[in-house]
Amino acid sequence: MSAFATAADFERALRSLPAADDAAITAAQARQAQLTKPAGSLGRLEEITIFLAGWQGRPVPALDRVRAAVFAGNHGVTVHGVSTFPPTVTAEMVRNFERGGAAINALAGAAGMELKVVALDLHRPTADFTVAPAMDEEECLAALNAGAAVVDADLDLLAVGEMGIGNSTSAAALCARSFGGSAAEWVGPGTGVDAAGIARKIDVVERGLALHLDTPATPFETLRRFGGREIAAIAGAVVRARQLGVPLVLDGFISCASIAPLAAAYPAITDHCIAGHVSAEPGHARLLDRLGLVPLLSLNMRLGEASGAAVATGVIRAAVAAHANMATFAEAGVSGAE
Amino acid sequence: MSAFATAADFERALRSLPAADDAAITAAQARQAQLTKPAGSLGRLEEITIFLAGWQGRPVPALDRVRAAVFAGNHGVTVHGVSTFPPTVTAEMVRNFERGGAAINALAGAAGMELKVVALDLHRPTADFTVAPAMDEEECLAALNAGAAVVDADLDLLAVGEMGIGNSTSAAALCARSFGGSAAEWVGPGTGVDAAGIARKIDVVERGLALHLDTPATPFETLRRFGGREIAAIAGAVVRARQLGVPLVLDGFISCASIAPLAAAYPAITDHCIAGHVSAEPGHARLLDRLGLVPLLSLNMRLGEASGAAVATGVIRAAVAAHANMATFAEAGVSGAE
Repeated sequence: MSAFATAADFERALRSLPAADDAAITAAQARQAQLTKPAGSLGRLEEITIFLAGWQGRPVPALDRVRAAVFAGNHGVTVHGVSTFPPTVTAEMVRNFERGGAAINALAGAAGMELKVVALDLHRPTADFTVAPAMDEEECLAALNAGAAVVDADLDLLAVGEMGIGNSTSAAALCARSFGGSAAEWVGPGTGVDAAGIARKIDVVERGLALHLDTPATPFETLRRFGGREIAAIAGAVVRARQLGVPLVLDGFISCASIAPLAAAYPAITDHCIAGHVSAEPGHARLLDRLGLVPLLSLNMRLGEASGAAVATGVIRAAVAAHANMATFAEAGVSGAE
Repeated sequence: MSAFATAADFERALRSLPAADDAAITAAQARQAQLTKPAGSLGRLEEITIFLAGWQGRPVPALDRVRAAVFAGNHGVTVHGVSTFPPTVTAEMVRNFERGGAAINALAGAAGMELKVVALDLHRPTADFTVAPAMDEEECLAALNAGAAVVDADLDLLAVGEMGIGNSTSAAALCARSFGGSAAEWVGPGTGVDAAGIARKIDVVERGLALHLDTPATPFETLRRFGGREIAAIAGAVVRARQLGVPLVLDGFISCASIAPLAAAYPAITDHCIAGHVSAEPGHARLLDRLGLVPLLSLNMRLGEASGAAVATGVIRAAVAAHANMATFAEAGVSGAE
């Protein structure tokens, strides 16, 4: 059974987002105050644990089952020369994921995450959004549901990421459409295009924005007009994770852009999300600011594939280990502050 | 046998610091260029692996044996009310380390590090540096050697940290003496003193600087006059690691201040060091800048105990995993950039 039977179902889910468990948050805060360290001295590690407690609904969160989901899709806008890599690389990289040779395989392994790769109709790129909506309603809904399908209620944490040659152009369009600002403010080098490539990307985004200017600006319509299948899948996974109470780690610019149309209309959608990192793609810092998220890491990464989210998950594991395993002042017989 | 028989031995080691292995660096760079990702897209993860390759002297570094060393010492300047915690907490926390209840136990466990705790004459605090040198020559030399003794040549990575009530005052004095600037520029809240406490710390540092103004400013003399045993031990460990080709992760303000006197005279001492994080202690960012180090993490931590270095070690493990385990473009049959 699909999570979202219709586009209206998806929008309805966005209007009724569940909240975190306040009692678990209070209990986690109380435990933090008793652990053998100066109050607040673990900084963001403390904040993360309390956040996880709230979404997992228990004073001591656990990370027994953590999944990285990587969605792959192909993009019609690649005809405009918006990437340094040919679109065949999307499928080649999916094979690489499946054989264990990509960065995310190594990084998910290091962070103790299971990896789920979902290739979405790679043989059928989305339409070029400068001439038509990228997807029809059925295609977009299928992608949302493919994303929702990776979320199991018993996951302790989900990280999302993507692979899709051309998708930083799609992401820039989603950001400009959702939050305003010029195409140039949201376009960047992606996998590494030069100045001429950036100019081509800006032109493509501008033409797309112009074409769809007078269409409905709902999350679903924006996703289907400018998004890709992997992008809609991330949006579906984020909403489904919220419904099921699964906290989530976002990856880079494209992952975050996937929820830009949702956040523009429903800012609370990011409440169960951790920004794993801020990437080297210039639009990402700007986007995180619009999403109200402070990134955990800043390592100049720009790969996608959930790679930054996976590195962040290692840090999140450290946070949970400290919260769960440290002794209290009373247990350890350590004197408190005077 | 001690690493440094005399103070002159220690200074001699600083004058003949070994360099990294250029051939291993070149080979690691060549491997990075072949891995299935856009060139440079793993950002600092790539830089870290290449750095480790250079110091480990092999194209594919490993992290099979990683140690966190935490040194503890007590400080004469605590008589001036420079900490919110009583000095008895140093010994209480050492017991907590030994029983496994402290943050560093949890964080070292999460990062796959063995933990070595070295308590240095806790019953015998250093002298109050506002009235005398903190240590005599023999005491300082013993502490340097205690630090050097935690470094085994077969370690793949060493993280250093400290515990010592009052030692952020000592660290501020070391920074001001080594790099100049007023006491107020280097003093911060430490474990959490209020404005009056900060004023007391500034006064203590100013009086110390005035007392020792016309004494020799060699690394050894600065360490013994303003340092603590745990601080000198960190300096000894850093120099010994360099001699044995062991790359090292620094922790927060106090760990970094421990090598400030060394770096002021011999800036290359930091070449085998990674700054694990920048802490919430205001002087730390300023100090990292003087040391020429860019921190890996910025998580608003301010605990010491090698806690930030341990979290950083998890990220370093991710970097090594990607470098060691990823497929090349040729192996994976993935097309390169056009």
